[in-house]
Amino acid sequence: MERPKPWPRTGFLHFRDIQTRWMDNDIYGHVNNAVHYSYFDTAVNRYLIETGALDLQNGSVIGLVVETACSYFKELAFPDRISAGLRVTRIGRTSVRFEVALFREDDEFAAAQGHFVHVYVDRATRRPVDLPEALKNSLADLKQQRNYF
Amino acid sequence: MERPKPWPRTGFLHFRDIQTRWMDNDIYGHVNNAVHYSYFDTAVNRYLIETGALDLQNGSVIGLVVETACSYFKELAFPDRISAGLRVTRIGRTSVRFEVALFREDDEFAAAQGHFVHVYVDRATRRPVDLPEALKNSLADLKQQRNYF
Amino acid sequence: MERPKPWPRTGFLHFRDIQTRWMDNDIYGHVNNAVHYSYFDTAVNRYLIETGALDLQNGSVIGLVVETACSYFKELAFPDRISAGLRVTRIGRTSVRFEVALFREDDEFAAAQGHFVHVYVDRATRRPVDLPEALKNSLADLKQQRNYF
Amino acid sequence: MERPKPWPRTGFLHFRDIQTRWMDNDIYGHVNNAVHYSYFDTAVNRYLIETGALDLQNGSVIGLVVETACSYFKELAFPDRISAGLRVTRIGRTSVRFEVALFREDDEFAAAQGHFVHVYVDRATRRPVDLPEALKNSLADLKQQRNYF
Repeated sequence: MERPKPWPRTGFLHFRDIQTRWMDNDIYGHVNNAVHYSYFDTAVNRYLIETGALDLQNGSVIGLVVETACSYFKELAFPDRISAGLRVTRIGRTSVRFEVALFREDDEFAAAQGHFVHVYVDRATRRPVDLPEALKNSLADLKQQRNYF
Repeated sequence: MERPKPWPRTGFLHFRDIQTRWMDNDIYGHVNNAVHYSYFDTAVNRYLIETGALDLQNGSVIGLVVETACSYFKELAFPDRISAGLRVTRIGRTSVRFEVALFREDDEFAAAQGHFVHVYVDRATRRPVDLPEALKNSLADLKQQRNYF
Repeated sequence: MERPKPWPRTGFLHFRDIQTRWMDNDIYGHVNNAVHYSYFDTAVNRYLIETGALDLQNGSVIGLVVETACSYFKELAFPDRISAGLRVTRIGRTSVRFEVALFREDDEFAAAQGHFVHVYVDRATRRPVDLPEALKNSLADLKQQRNYF
Repeated sequence: MERPKPWPRTGFLHFRDIQTRWMDNDIYGHVNNAVHYSYFDTAVNRYLIETGALDLQNGSVIGLVVETACSYFKELAFPDRISAGLRVTRIGRTSVRFEVALFREDDEFAAAQGHFVHVYVDRATRRPVDLPEALKNSLADLKQQRNYF
């Protein structure tokens, strides 16, 4: 099994804080693997809403998730404070690839990291549509990355 | 149906911020009624951990929930920022009654409010035990209330 | 603290099975108190959909929860099989009171029980509306109860 | 974006039913992408418990998830009935790779599919351990596959 290396905090320019919850801990006393994906969703959608790219209640274009993946390096647990680093690695005509890293407290390297691919569709017909302008602008900032190599 | 009145923010001395998540919204576009209880749990347990009254991984005494209730006055929705007001209205020999109010953004009155009753038990035997000293000290602060009438 | 007595299975005519999930167990190895409410929601809405009283995607009338409560008598834990007993104790002009009991495996008495109150509103305006006919018919069956005293 | 093809039901010998819940639906009216992973967990752990390979409360060996991934082909929504197909594609000295496909109602092809990798560790020290015998026997059955090519 070839495993990816944990991404460093320096690989990200944009962050959103994530608050852990009592219920995130499962019987093993750590955040259950499925919960990491709800952190991804929350961090990215919060960014999109704050930058005016997503209108939850009224927007006519929505992002459907078609692919997700996550690697887990270190256990997280309530009441840890988590910082989610966000970046975009590909912007297609109708789809976008986001990468998210979850940093525990002040850790330098990710406790978990992953990606997901959004395909943007019309809310009613669920047919793919070209990325709206406001979204493209918001994503352009996420695609800017530190030259950290 | 006789409904309680929303509690005012001035009825509380202790608060914890609660972050909403994408998944909290159900098909009706608002926070699902069950999720409010996970906010209660998170706010109260965060307080207990921060004040040294609860040790999740090693503590030998745990609080079992025997009763919960909530009244809903106003819809909450991701990405709302919520402030949870906490207080204790009864400290028994083995049990405690917590009240929690959820304030949306800077609202003066609760969007939802409720209570839950913890009975403290031995983690292994699950038999009720007298409240530990550290817990009693932590709860005493929550029982102090503004004289707001 | 005066506690209610566990309701018997014989107090219910309508049941829906509930499947527990890995994630329902919290760090204490039992179903977290908030999860019981998601069982209530699931059992009642499944009943309403199956009896034609609720159309999730297209219905113009939705039930908003304005009050919930639960008493916990016995721990539940994944992978327990749960049976939810359903009944209605009050049908108002715009609101309904449901009672739900959760029976573990073949237990005769409830491990947990509670109620919630739905106010029915127009999906768009969120203003209360009279209960639709299809809903009233579906609820009438839930109001039929065994004469178990 | 090269996407995998949906796996057929005929590729699996072992299935577990999954019940959707009201709360699984997000604001877009479908099962949120993170919830699929809780279906994976539930189906696989149910299988492991039923075949005597996992003892949640007392077992000294636990499976930590180190990698997960999922592809989404078709929306799922409460109250859909889902069937999870399970198989194992690699059994290492301390780790196992599970594949899970989620079939909606009587569909022939998966609505979503993915995999996760468990590393088995000592519950107390969290150090990797050789797979216990009972687990290996249980997994051997999951590795048997229909010769469906």
